[in-house]
Amino acid sequence: MGRVTERRRVIRIRDGAVSTGPDTLVAEEPLEIRLGGKPLAITMRTPGDDFALAAGFLVSEGVLASADELANIVYCAGATADGENTYNVVDVRLADGVPVPEITLERNVYTTSSCGLCGKASLDAVRTTTRWPLASSPAAADGIDPIPIDPIPIAPIRIDPETLAALPDRLRAAQRVFERTGGLHAAALFTTDGELLDIREDVGRHNAVDKIVGRALQQGQLPLSSCVLMVSGRASFELAQKAVMAGIPVLAAVSAPSSLAVDLAAETGLTLVGFLRGSSMNVYAGEHRIALPAGAATPTD
Amino acid sequence: MGRVTERRRVIRIRDGAVSTGPDTLVAEEPLEIRLGGKPLAITMRTPGDDFALAAGFLVSEGVLASADELANIVYCAGATADGENTYNVVDVRLADGVPVPEITLERNVYTTSSCGLCGKASLDAVRTTTRWPLASSPAAADGIDPIPIDPIPIAPIRIDPETLAALPDRLRAAQRVFERTGGLHAAALFTTDGELLDIREDVGRHNAVDKIVGRALQQGQLPLSSCVLMVSGRASFELAQKAVMAGIPVLAAVSAPSSLAVDLAAETGLTLVGFLRGSSMNVYAGEHRIALPAGAATPTD
Repeated sequence: MGRVTERRRVIRIRDGAVSTGPDTLVAEEPLEIRLGGKPLAITMRTPGDDFALAAGFLVSEGVLASADELANIVYCAGATADGENTYNVVDVRLADGVPVPEITLERNVYTTSSCGLCGKASLDAVRTTTRWPLASSPAAADGIDPIPIDPIPIAPIRIDPETLAALPDRLRAAQRVFERTGGLHAAALFTTDGELLDIREDVGRHNAVDKIVGRALQQGQLPLSSCVLMVSGRASFELAQKAVMAGIPVLAAVSAPSSLAVDLAAETGLTLVGFLRGSSMNVYAGEHRIALPAGAATPTD
Repeated sequence: MGRVTERRRVIRIRDGAVSTGPDTLVAEEPLEIRLGGKPLAITMRTPGDDFALAAGFLVSEGVLASADELANIVYCAGATADGENTYNVVDVRLADGVPVPEITLERNVYTTSSCGLCGKASLDAVRTTTRWPLASSPAAADGIDPIPIDPIPIAPIRIDPETLAALPDRLRAAQRVFERTGGLHAAALFTTDGELLDIREDVGRHNAVDKIVGRALQQGQLPLSSCVLMVSGRASFELAQKAVMAGIPVLAAVSAPSSLAVDLAAETGLTLVGFLRGSSMNVYAGEHRIALPAGAATPTD
């Protein structure tokens, strides 16, 4: 695991008793992502899977969608004044003919923040850039008209609530670093039968998702149209956006979603499950992919 | 509270039983921060205290350090094509004579990511830009020599572990929105006696901290040199950096710190407490501000 964790001295206080010793911490270091030699974004991440992180980031940004669009990724030597390779700067080269996005100040603001536009406009931007619209019949959120989209044919998936209920325990069981540090988020990819395909841990939840998506791109597996993405914490707009950009139809989170994550899910047809804890869960959008008993979901208020 | 929360329809599944009804979610919307009319950064935040958020962000970035350097902050109308005011774009005007940082692509990468340099270089950048060096005798981390700094005179503070132990319950008791949504981080400012001075909630922990620091700037209270900053989750490099930039000498977190947060704390003299849960806590740096029994901290391994 190497640089994934680091050791530091700590003073422990327990009910007034004081002791000193080493502690294992999650490693956090900056990663600068360059595209064709030009700085594009910097993220604070846990070292490891950096090329996958860079590739997945570019999927989220709509730059990459398949392995053959990627020429190569390298660590940049000479990133510091003394020419040392910090392994904290990667350069991505696109394949010949793949359009390089213009890196302007505005564009850069967009890429480093996941959302450079305001409110409705940002949702439009995501929907128009994804190459894999998720659903032919997205469920509309209250007060939001469904937007007509023109999906490529993807077999619809359905997932059983009992299968979803088993995912949090499997995610936690597969987390290797969290137990040692208490400081890592995790993202995991599952089949609709609940089989674990991949798991990544990182100080940043968005990085863990980028690493999963980037590895899938490198292995020629995008879009991930028959997969469930599970995250260890909350579901923000940014995470919902990353799922949509990778063609992942179901996003499940242990904790709460934000309003904008729900809105994006409703508009794009993403199935969004929150507060997934044992046999208890909330479905915020895209319930057509959840195998509910017929007529089960009747309004109670 | 208005836009702090939003209502959406949800399908609840509890042990196979399905019901439908409204749910309260934490609101998440993008905020674009402009400086003198030019886009500087965008953050996904919970609406509210936007001017404080913008001001605090500029403190973190080393642009602002006192209220008289700030001319005014306004919401920008005309941010959308139809000229509507989304209340998601703010423009900050600096007072006459205050240097406006040059907003280049490189600078922008820096500002939107909290750290545009690699490893050691980034720590140097933070230490040189803060106007309030924290300590005359920072504790050195293992293997890191203390860096000589030239602090302005600030009365040293000392805080009792028992006072720290009481903070998490006070933080949680003061959180208003978390109970309704389960989706909010919190940051709170306490005196060294444990008195709550301010608390802010946001989908982003860094935003909650910026809102606290920004309000303090607006009220002429920087540097916050006799305060403790408490955050609801983990302590990342970014949060440690924000504490240092605001002159806050003690950062306490409910969960784990990252390696880079500990390194920054050790180098700048910031007291960093993690896993603060009841009478149990870990002190990672700056233990000279914790009132330990004399000779208590003896190495146990």
